[in-house]
Amino acid sequence: MSESLRTVDIIAAKRDGRNLSEAQVSSFIKGYAEGSVPDYQAAAWCMATFLNGMTPEETGYLTRAMIDSGDIINLSALAGPFVDKHSTGGVGDKISLILAPLAAACGVKVPMMSGRALGHTGGTLDKLDSIPGYTTALSPERFAAGVGEVGFAMTGQSEKVVPADRKMYALRDVIAAVESIPLITASILSKKFAEGADALVMDVKCGSGAFMKTLDDARALAESLVRTGESLDRRVIAVLTDMSEPLGRKVGNFLEVEESLACLRGEGPADVMEITLRLTAWMIVAAGLEQDVEAAQERCLIALDDGSAMEKFRANVAFQGGDVDELDAMEGRARAKFSRDIPAGSSGFVTGIDAYAVGTAGVALGVGRDTAADPVEPLAGIELFKKMGEEVGKGETVMKLWAEDEARLDAAAQRLESAVRIDSSAARKNESLILEEIVPA
Amino acid sequence: MSESLRTVDIIAAKRDGRNLSEAQVSSFIKGYAEGSVPDYQAAAWCMATFLNGMTPEETGYLTRAMIDSGDIINLSALAGPFVDKHSTGGVGDKISLILAPLAAACGVKVPMMSGRALGHTGGTLDKLDSIPGYTTALSPERFAAGVGEVGFAMTGQSEKVVPADRKMYALRDVIAAVESIPLITASILSKKFAEGADALVMDVKCGSGAFMKTLDDARALAESLVRTGESLDRRVIAVLTDMSEPLGRKVGNFLEVEESLACLRGEGPADVMEITLRLTAWMIVAAGLEQDVEAAQERCLIALDDGSAMEKFRANVAFQGGDVDELDAMEGRARAKFSRDIPAGSSGFVTGIDAYAVGTAGVALGVGRDTAADPVEPLAGIELFKKMGEEVGKGETVMKLWAEDEARLDAAAQRLESAVRIDSSAARKNESLILEEIVPA
Repeated sequence: MSESLRTVDIIAAKRDGRNLSEAQVSSFIKGYAEGSVPDYQAAAWCMATFLNGMTPEETGYLTRAMIDSGDIINLSALAGPFVDKHSTGGVGDKISLILAPLAAACGVKVPMMSGRALGHTGGTLDKLDSIPGYTTALSPERFAAGVGEVGFAMTGQSEKVVPADRKMYALRDVIAAVESIPLITASILSKKFAEGADALVMDVKCGSGAFMKTLDDARALAESLVRTGESLDRRVIAVLTDMSEPLGRKVGNFLEVEESLACLRGEGPADVMEITLRLTAWMIVAAGLEQDVEAAQERCLIALDDGSAMEKFRANVAFQGGDVDELDAMEGRARAKFSRDIPAGSSGFVTGIDAYAVGTAGVALGVGRDTAADPVEPLAGIELFKKMGEEVGKGETVMKLWAEDEARLDAAAQRLESAVRIDSSAARKNESLILEEIVPA
Repeated sequence: MSESLRTVDIIAAKRDGRNLSEAQVSSFIKGYAEGSVPDYQAAAWCMATFLNGMTPEETGYLTRAMIDSGDIINLSALAGPFVDKHSTGGVGDKISLILAPLAAACGVKVPMMSGRALGHTGGTLDKLDSIPGYTTALSPERFAAGVGEVGFAMTGQSEKVVPADRKMYALRDVIAAVESIPLITASILSKKFAEGADALVMDVKCGSGAFMKTLDDARALAESLVRTGESLDRRVIAVLTDMSEPLGRKVGNFLEVEESLACLRGEGPADVMEITLRLTAWMIVAAGLEQDVEAAQERCLIALDDGSAMEKFRANVAFQGGDVDELDAMEGRARAKFSRDIPAGSSGFVTGIDAYAVGTAGVALGVGRDTAADPVEPLAGIELFKKMGEEVGKGETVMKLWAEDEARLDAAAQRLESAVRIDSSAARKNESLILEEIVPA
């Protein structure tokens, strides 16, 4: 194997499908972060990596090099274990809002760095921002204090953490090199480990509303995440979950906060609860607080039942500047100015709700954004009155849309025109949304 | 097939192995030439093309887009047919110097745009520059006049011809994307067709001293050149020739002019003559002046025999400012200041002369250059006293090196240490250096 550290030789090695050494990956990423490796060389390297792949070891080197490019959140003054969860993004995915307080109530420390809505998928930070006063812009010190005092804290990614990843992600976006499994793996893991997590539970979503459309693609990403974690001596547990229809019955920013509160009260929809409980249970196992995932899940049910999870949520809202009383007053009432009911076109059973169409309708309503600079509407969104397997009469309302102006309702309704499939008989529905689990040895 | 003209979609299409449309290739190259497509997008596209290839049709689109990026040498005021020859580069390759006047003597118009030495291969322009007064920097008008009056002219590539290729070649060099068959094809053909050639004869060299080391690689490039020519309705004929040992008995700048004069007098080495005659004959066929390559070759022998080829050479030297009398005076006498004989280490038969080693020794002597900015020495070089199949006694001189200082002799001698293989019995030698010919239908 060539051990040359010349940039052009490193590109040639990856072009020819050879495995890079740690010194090669590290030299390349360091140079790229510092600017001595120009964008055009990084672009060629990304495309070669896209087409020729990387071993888990190489992906581990890349992850480490990304982490080394910037600041690391230091939680060493606190007692761990620090475990985070990350999702590849879905529609109606409010799981972080329930899972973080639930895991904290079970003794896991959760330093959660989240993203914003982009494209058809929602963003945890936008949802939290719909709580009056709540800030997701925490200093590293305040973030650490939140993890220490409440058990979890929610923040956006700092510009100073993994700058090489930010720079490379922006480049990948304009050179058609986003959907590369090793590059996605290193991007996710570097951010999570730099933020202070010792272990990570991954929700790899699969289906029309997800980044990975097929089970094979989702499994390949999950495998890459788990094996790269192994190569870095960090526990990464991946759960593949179904994202063919939206999660839960509410899609929006405040609407999803509301549904999260219902979940923390034990009154949430079965699909959201199933995935939340499983992911939280794996976090407890990853933290070493339980050996067995079933036992960990029992602990979660107790924390929901005794109100301790809800207490953690309210403590976090207060810690991050949110107004808990106003939140209480808004629940079930705060809605955007205009609404429209979407009726069923025929009678029968709902056999499909296209999550991607619902996600893009959400963008039209103002839930999400097309470009990173767009603002979002806190109270806009979609309520799903019917979900897969449920019976519906012709003309009965299947969805209710909320927006701050009528034109947005029009645009959203148009995107939803063929989103709901109704057939004369109910399709056989999967028992569970958990498709597979990949746990390191 | 996606017909999007968005740059990122064009990159994604090539990344996914799809064929690009003419509009896509043209939009991409136009944008790159103008600067609206940045280097990093071009780099990703080049790497995707390197790894996924292109059809002859796509390569044709690329060739046309390259041509359209700059000026075209207009020879329409002259009577054709205009045929050029191009070689992929070898060691001791002085064929252009013999072939151009020979073809011109047979009625072919040869607008020859050549390159300079780079790496271990020599450059036609550097060889011609060793003739006192000779200039290879002709204006387009003067170039056309030379083609019209003498029958051929020799010039360097203008900055204004195929600027997109110049820009992309510089990029490919630093992103490890040089050795791509469609990119090489479009680079060669765009330059040749923009300079006014109607048809092209390609000498695709194969062996240790060539760019293409294996017959498979050389054949793939030759096929690509011929098929891309077909897609553009231009005749391209490719001849695969062996480049395991240096061509002829002289490697250098003036040394190769000298050997070319011997060839034009009918006294040249058999290997140089064989390839020159065959390539020139194909030019005559490509020009439509003969149907049959054997008949064309007969015409060449006559033009050598009756002195008309030599007359064309001398007329060109005079036209391009060279001093014919001084050239005559230099022949057999003009040599660099220092020389060294390289003796045979044992007795036996020469079974191999490593052309690559001889080429790099030439660079050490000052024949060629490592970077485009280095000057070359006109009188430095190597004389080969023994070639493959010839018998040699221990201590007998196999090569003589010429340089302007002793240090260069030392460096060259070191590079030649194991360049000549001598065995007790002669290896079976190929009858011919012509390995294959690819002629369009």
